[in-house]
Amino acid sequence: MRAAERRLRAGELALRIAVLGLGLTAAALVGSDSQVRRIFSLEKRARFTDMKVLVFVVVANGVAAGYSLLQALRCVVGAMRGYVVLNKVLAWIIFSCDQVMAYVLLSAMAAAAQASVLGQFGQPELQWIKTCELYKKFCKQVGEGLGSAFVGSMAMIMVTCISAFNLFRLYGSKNSNGGW
Amino acid sequence: MRAAERRLRAGELALRIAVLGLGLTAAALVGSDSQVRRIFSLEKRARFTDMKVLVFVVVANGVAAGYSLLQALRCVVGAMRGYVVLNKVLAWIIFSCDQVMAYVLLSAMAAAAQASVLGQFGQPELQWIKTCELYKKFCKQVGEGLGSAFVGSMAMIMVTCISAFNLFRLYGSKNSNGGW
Repeated sequence: MRAAERRLRAGELALRIAVLGLGLTAAALVGSDSQVRRIFSLEKRARFTDMKVLVFVVVANGVAAGYSLLQALRCVVGAMRGYVVLNKVLAWIIFSCDQVMAYVLLSAMAAAAQASVLGQFGQPELQWIKTCELYKKFCKQVGEGLGSAFVGSMAMIMVTCISAFNLFRLYGSKNSNGGW
Repeated sequence: MRAAERRLRAGELALRIAVLGLGLTAAALVGSDSQVRRIFSLEKRARFTDMKVLVFVVVANGVAAGYSLLQALRCVVGAMRGYVVLNKVLAWIIFSCDQVMAYVLLSAMAAAAQASVLGQFGQPELQWIKTCELYKKFCKQVGEGLGSAFVGSMAMIMVTCISAFNLFRLYGSKNSNGGW
């Protein structure tokens, strides 16, 4: 089982680094996005702060990146010192934080995707115009950022499976025959 | 451990029934929502099918309700026959389906919540009007449906923790000392 355990640890570290990279990319792409359009003498600027959901995406991905950095460091330190998480309290904390991060990342991504679809296609029934026809470059960059956020949240979901495994195996199967 | 095991099973059943009830409520509230407004001689009708995300909410909650019904039946049959899930393949299937359901429910809810916020407050920078000022009754009912969907997805998230526990404890702690 040593080899399987090592592969699992390597997988966790790789996934956490992926979340870190993808979260940073998403936050940078969305957070730095801005486009100025000159309509006659009027200058109009689209910024990510115009839509609260994009601010939510930037913050959520930034927090996820920072969190993943800390967790990746924990993985590396754990590998060097050669210990395995056998402390139930620590395993519960890691499990809970991972769960919250995964759900927050996915919610932010879903909400922003919905806003983007409205921006791209408009909603004629509600007289909402296709904003992306005006701000093509802006929308393209938001789309790239959301793509990165999507892959990042998938990686985070895989991380939650590993941390659930690391937590609940501590409860062993020796007790599971006691039920009905 | 018998009592703890029984409480866990009862909790799982209660949560699955909660998801069933809340999912049905959400799907019914959003799916039956409609409002007609007469603006001069023009008749305008708001329906949930006008926004694709509301259709997504209705479908996701309907599927979650059906799925929870099946799972609740499995829990009841398991309780009557007195067996516990010790089959890894079955535990993996339940775990995976629960995960997918939880993430789909939460995504649908987040996307619809974003659309609702836009409907409620508009987005002046994009010239998107506050649709809910026109369709107050419609928006109120969607809000109630989304509230129900939100509580339902929280219950589903708790279910995923139980199914993760039921799966990963099968891997026992006896192997976990083999790693670093």
